Amino acid sequence: MNRRGLVAIIVFLGISLAPVGTHVAADEQPLAGFSAESSRAERQWEEKMRAIPDPDRVRAYMKQLSARPHHVGSKYDKENADWLLAKFKEFGLDAHIETFDVLMPTPKARAVELVDDSGAVKFAAKLEEPVVKEDPTSDQTAEQLPTYNSYSIDGDKTAPLVYVNFGVPADYEQLERMGISVKGAIVIARYYGSWRGIKPKVAAEHGAIGCLIFSDPHEDGYTQGDVFPAGPYRPRDGVQRGSVADMPLYAGDPLTPGVGATKNAKRLAIKDAQTITKIPVLPISYGDAEPLLASLKGPIAPQAWRGGLGIGYHIGPGPGRVHLKVISNWDMAPVNDVIAKIPGSVYPDEWVIRGNHHDGWVNGAEDPISGQSAMLEEARALGQLVQQGWKPKRTLIFCAWDGEEEGLLGSTEWVETHAEELDKHAVAYINSDGNGRGYLGLGGSHTLEKFVNDIARDVQDPETKLSAWKREQLRAIEEAPGDKKQEIRQRADMHLGALGSGSDFTPFLQHVGVASLNIGYGGEDGGGIYHSIYDDFYWYTHFADTNFVYGRALAQTGASMMMRLGDADLLPFEFGDFAETMQTYVKELKELSKKMQDEIRERNREIDEGVFAAIADPKKTEVPPKKEEVPPYQNFAPLENAADAVSHSAAEYRKALEHANANGGAALAAASIAEVNRLLIESERKFITPEGLPSRPWYRHQLYAPGFYTGYAAKTMPYVRESIEQKQWKQADEGVVVVAKCLEDEAKLIADAAAKLAAAH
Amino acid sequence: MNRRGLVAIIVFLGISLAPVGTHVAADEQPLAGFSAESSRAERQWEEKMRAIPDPDRVRAYMKQLSARPHHVGSKYDKENADWLLAKFKEFGLDAHIETFDVLMPTPKARAVELVDDSGAVKFAAKLEEPVVKEDPTSDQTAEQLPTYNSYSIDGDKTAPLVYVNFGVPADYEQLERMGISVKGAIVIARYYGSWRGIKPKVAAEHGAIGCLIFSDPHEDGYTQGDVFPAGPYRPRDGVQRGSVADMPLYAGDPLTPGVGATKNAKRLAIKDAQTITKIPVLPISYGDAEPLLASLKGPIAPQAWRGGLGIGYHIGPGPGRVHLKVISNWDMAPVNDVIAKIPGSVYPDEWVIRGNHHDGWVNGAEDPISGQSAMLEEARALGQLVQQGWKPKRTLIFCAWDGEEEGLLGSTEWVETHAEELDKHAVAYINSDGNGRGYLGLGGSHTLEKFVNDIARDVQDPETKLSAWKREQLRAIEEAPGDKKQEIRQRADMHLGALGSGSDFTPFLQHVGVASLNIGYGGEDGGGIYHSIYDDFYWYTHFADTNFVYGRALAQTGASMMMRLGDADLLPFEFGDFAETMQTYVKELKELSKKMQDEIRERNREIDEGVFAAIADPKKTEVPPKKEEVPPYQNFAPLENAADAVSHSAAEYRKALEHANANGGAALAAASIAEVNRLLIESERKFITPEGLPSRPWYRHQLYAPGFYTGYAAKTMPYVRESIEQKQWKQADEGVVVVAKCLEDEAKLIADAAAKLAAAH
Repeated sequence: MNRRGLVAIIVFLGISLAPVGTHVAADEQPLAGFSAESSRAERQWEEKMRAIPDPDRVRAYMKQLSARPHHVGSKYDKENADWLLAKFKEFGLDAHIETFDVLMPTPKARAVELVDDSGAVKFAAKLEEPVVKEDPTSDQTAEQLPTYNSYSIDGDKTAPLVYVNFGVPADYEQLERMGISVKGAIVIARYYGSWRGIKPKVAAEHGAIGCLIFSDPHEDGYTQGDVFPAGPYRPRDGVQRGSVADMPLYAGDPLTPGVGATKNAKRLAIKDAQTITKIPVLPISYGDAEPLLASLKGPIAPQAWRGGLGIGYHIGPGPGRVHLKVISNWDMAPVNDVIAKIPGSVYPDEWVIRGNHHDGWVNGAEDPISGQSAMLEEARALGQLVQQGWKPKRTLIFCAWDGEEEGLLGSTEWVETHAEELDKHAVAYINSDGNGRGYLGLGGSHTLEKFVNDIARDVQDPETKLSAWKREQLRAIEEAPGDKKQEIRQRADMHLGALGSGSDFTPFLQHVGVASLNIGYGGEDGGGIYHSIYDDFYWYTHFADTNFVYGRALAQTGASMMMRLGDADLLPFEFGDFAETMQTYVKELKELSKKMQDEIRERNREIDEGVFAAIADPKKTEVPPKKEEVPPYQNFAPLENAADAVSHSAAEYRKALEHANANGGAALAAASIAEVNRLLIESERKFITPEGLPSRPWYRHQLYAPGFYTGYAAKTMPYVRESIEQKQWKQADEGVVVVAKCLEDEAKLIADAAAKLAAAH
Repeated sequence: MNRRGLVAIIVFLGISLAPVGTHVAADEQPLAGFSAESSRAERQWEEKMRAIPDPDRVRAYMKQLSARPHHVGSKYDKENADWLLAKFKEFGLDAHIETFDVLMPTPKARAVELVDDSGAVKFAAKLEEPVVKEDPTSDQTAEQLPTYNSYSIDGDKTAPLVYVNFGVPADYEQLERMGISVKGAIVIARYYGSWRGIKPKVAAEHGAIGCLIFSDPHEDGYTQGDVFPAGPYRPRDGVQRGSVADMPLYAGDPLTPGVGATKNAKRLAIKDAQTITKIPVLPISYGDAEPLLASLKGPIAPQAWRGGLGIGYHIGPGPGRVHLKVISNWDMAPVNDVIAKIPGSVYPDEWVIRGNHHDGWVNGAEDPISGQSAMLEEARALGQLVQQGWKPKRTLIFCAWDGEEEGLLGSTEWVETHAEELDKHAVAYINSDGNGRGYLGLGGSHTLEKFVNDIARDVQDPETKLSAWKREQLRAIEEAPGDKKQEIRQRADMHLGALGSGSDFTPFLQHVGVASLNIGYGGEDGGGIYHSIYDDFYWYTHFADTNFVYGRALAQTGASMMMRLGDADLLPFEFGDFAETMQTYVKELKELSKKMQDEIRERNREIDEGVFAAIADPKKTEVPPKKEEVPPYQNFAPLENAADAVSHSAAEYRKALEHANANGGAALAAASIAEVNRLLIESERKFITPEGLPSRPWYRHQLYAPGFYTGYAAKTMPYVRESIEQKQWKQADEGVVVVAKCLEDEAKLIADAAAKLAAAH
């Protein structure tokens, strides 16, 4: 996957800013978590570091790593891992490869055909991306994975086609109102609108027997701009590959949920693997989709469902009938994670972890190599600092993950294998997954919100020479509605978006409770080559961060984070912004509950009034909604009390911190500060419960999860929020108690940390 | 034109309703303006009337009137006028034809070509709508007007093409932000988004030298549904004809502004006619538009500008160059208005006027014959009642207008010719312009808001058997946002939309100040044959009100209005709803002024903060906005005081009315009631000022006008509102005084009427 999957919704809310730079003035405010003295040293090291990353090296890494297709199990995947290993070693890091064995299906037979009643083929989809002569790697056809969705179940089906828009639950509600069922049908859904694995899952829940997913030009083809090779967008026959495993159930190898896929791990039989789809799925281009969609009659699709093809979008069912065939080689393959360390000099057992995957669907220049190359340059920069005498207090670990594309395989299996160690040692995990031109996108744990704001203020946007923070703040001001602009101007920190899923932070954050961040630049360079053979060096160097200055910026940003977390006397966790966010979530949940009551009550009333009978057009099929029971009032008091407890503790911690910072922050040098750090490291773990979320115990974090029906997008306080959304009122009540308990525990931990910090001086 | 041009935004806000029907119960509330006794008689006559209209007759009228092309100057236009005259006479009405002589340009030469730099033609537009074999009148090619926009100036230009979306002022602001000028270019604009005549006007204001207007499939082609003949929507080569005169300047014959185009009228030279366009214009199909649009490069169009063609929408300029040629025969032609009367028995000098045009662009079944046929059936029904002994108190006048399509020619010239009589005699004007299946759409003078609500409660929707009022109220409840639903349920009356322009009410309402209404059913039957050769009997009987039950409903609705206005003891004008609407308009103007201040102040601040420099993508042309002076605070007090005076008088009138209604409403029979009626008739005239609106004195109504830059859509209190929108602050101040004076005069009139009414018993 890549950053498309990340919910890095950030709203910078800030005060005016000092000029970017690292001039170390005598009266300068020390960095958070540093004494005046250690802050001065840190600033000097960071300034040295930021001079090292070199755009031309980032370019050269990309050229190397994207030179051939490098998916899991391919020859070049292994070569890349070995090359990365050698590079990390060359830069002075202590590196090794850790290998897992995972299920890696690849296509044996694929067919999508339009057939008539006798079964005769009227149109056969190409299912192939043509070579583009300007693009020198597009002809590596022998090594390219065919276009397919990994972890689709095998199947060979013929049935009438139904167009289901994005194929999310709301779309099926609309179909129901139109009297259209997908039972026994093959559905065709557009990419976007959800993580792709949601589409076959929801289709199967509604009785469909097959699923096609197509790239509509409206989303990333000619509607958005010129298509490749004239421009960056998806050409007519371009296809988005991708995993369709039910990842919101659990991430990683489908055969080893919860445990590392080591040589001798206990494995499920393939038929028992719950994340493999229930119905066969294939992705297709808009060139292949157009005749299929044009074969449909039935009602015209609702306004918002109409895409960019030059046809009327009808829903069906049929009369077009589709033959869909997917048969895979259900093979095992190795995933090769490259792990590289710089040992800590003071707290070697406190680990700051950085990761970006290295496997691609094909040549994968943008996804993931643009991020991987920047991270490699980060490692080189830190290696150089070490040679110059820099000694980070904590252990820094760089991870180049394999098998992210199929389902976060490399990261998940590594996390599952090392879960106990991570529980003890992991301070934070910082992820990236590709990079581009534009704004610094950030998402993550709210205990690090202030920390990332500090970093964003200290790194420079290459195009405007403003700080990355300032540029994003100014954009946020411009984009906000009138009544929100002042708030953005006045808040000291940007709001961090919560993390859902779509990249390798998921096992760290949501399975073992390591405070996590996701970072990457983007927003100016659009495109439509995602997961296609055209995501390659030619495309990237013509249409993305063509001079790699944003590659350098990402290296500077990531390395700044690693250094500051690695060097801080007191870890720069902070709970004021966190507490504010918790209050917001609780308020949202109350509002959601009220909104559902109001909506159901209103709809019931309208049914009684005869509204739906009155507005039904007798020449169309319009199924009126059914009356529903009005949701009960819910008891949110435990959550409200717990959020208040967090706010209270956060204020205490802030007071203790101000005190500790007085007089040059000498207190931060006290030996007892280690105990405070210990508590801070544990702060994210408090949200992990052994039972995890209802029906998906692998997801154990009670604040953040990918939505069960969104896949990428986060659901915060998911036990409560999704229970309400799914009208599971009793379960929502249970969730309130579970989440409140976590927050109460967190409040105690923060209070404890505040007391220890106050005692340190 | 037809109902597409009418702003019939109605929001029914109502209380629960008694069953539809006209059972005359002893304790029934008398009709507004009737005594208990006269109300009983009226209900009986109306019940008789409603039984008369016959769908098969409406069908037969349509078949006759749409059998051949019948535009102004055509043989069949005159035959239709004669046929209508004969029908009115057959029904017992006193009818005649009144003829005017108008400028009626028709094409002599037309060309739209894509040319290369040497001038060689790469693509030549068809500019022709093909015969459809299923459609028996589509082959009357010898009589069909070619596809063109009437009142385009002659021209022969070659220039690069620029796509300008709908071609309204906001689109040019966006082009400016992208650094794109249309100076010296030919623009191509989509239909919709404004009245079509706005597009060449605004293009010329920005320096364009030619204008193409195309029908994008997104608006009324395949994006909306199956195209003709498989479905009702616009086929690939279908073209929307239509007038592009600058009608917001003045309506009617371009050569005779303000006076009737009688034989010996003083006429302007064609070159001095201000409403003829400044640049040549032609309408084209999407079949013809596609190669032109595909020839453009430059930036991709903003999201909202992208239409339904299967291409990327670029803006240009060029590289595609277009040769546009339009040369007309600048001939004069007769317009034949058919005028038919039923004389009043008590107040023959009080006229209730009903109109619908009879001319079409081609066969014009939907526009205008569906409305004309219903109106003719209305006239038959009333003629029958007269034979049965019914004697309306007031004179009823039915008008079948000619030349509406070119610019409200027939109605405007008639109104200008009879302006003095209308000023004295006209009670109200009720317009329709086509009809369809669905909901009763209503717009008009707010002094008649309560009246039309009463009528809508008494007519039945043919599909649901609910009252037309109830069906619309239930739809309004369903469509309103949650916080507006209760208001809709609780308000006794629907809100009437204000009238802009686009049909024959304009000269009545906006030139001479006759209280006006516009009525018609629609909303369920979509289509894309507007102003094309396919708007014919075949299309209408396959895709619209196919069994003509809504034709009957319109006849019942129109006749009910004519009868009740014609028979009332006291005219059913009411000022409570009116006063509420005036208060709303004043509030809107204050908010508009504040909003503009806030927006300009905020934008200036963002410019100072460097927002636009920060968010500019260096790889794109993005022109930052310029600082503007913040609008001054304005004095709205005169308007607020005047609106309060109206509210106060309205309350007095209501009290007097309640008193008059007591004891069976005997007071309404008093002779002195005639004086009150005189005042009520004058109530709309109070909004006419001799100087009219700034820069367009023909438009003299100070409450309602078509927007100078919208054409169809209304601007209420336009002197003030448009001055603010156009940043003419001094002029806005003047407008406040002018409108306030009108409202104060109206308040005095209402108070006077209340006093006279109170004295009547």
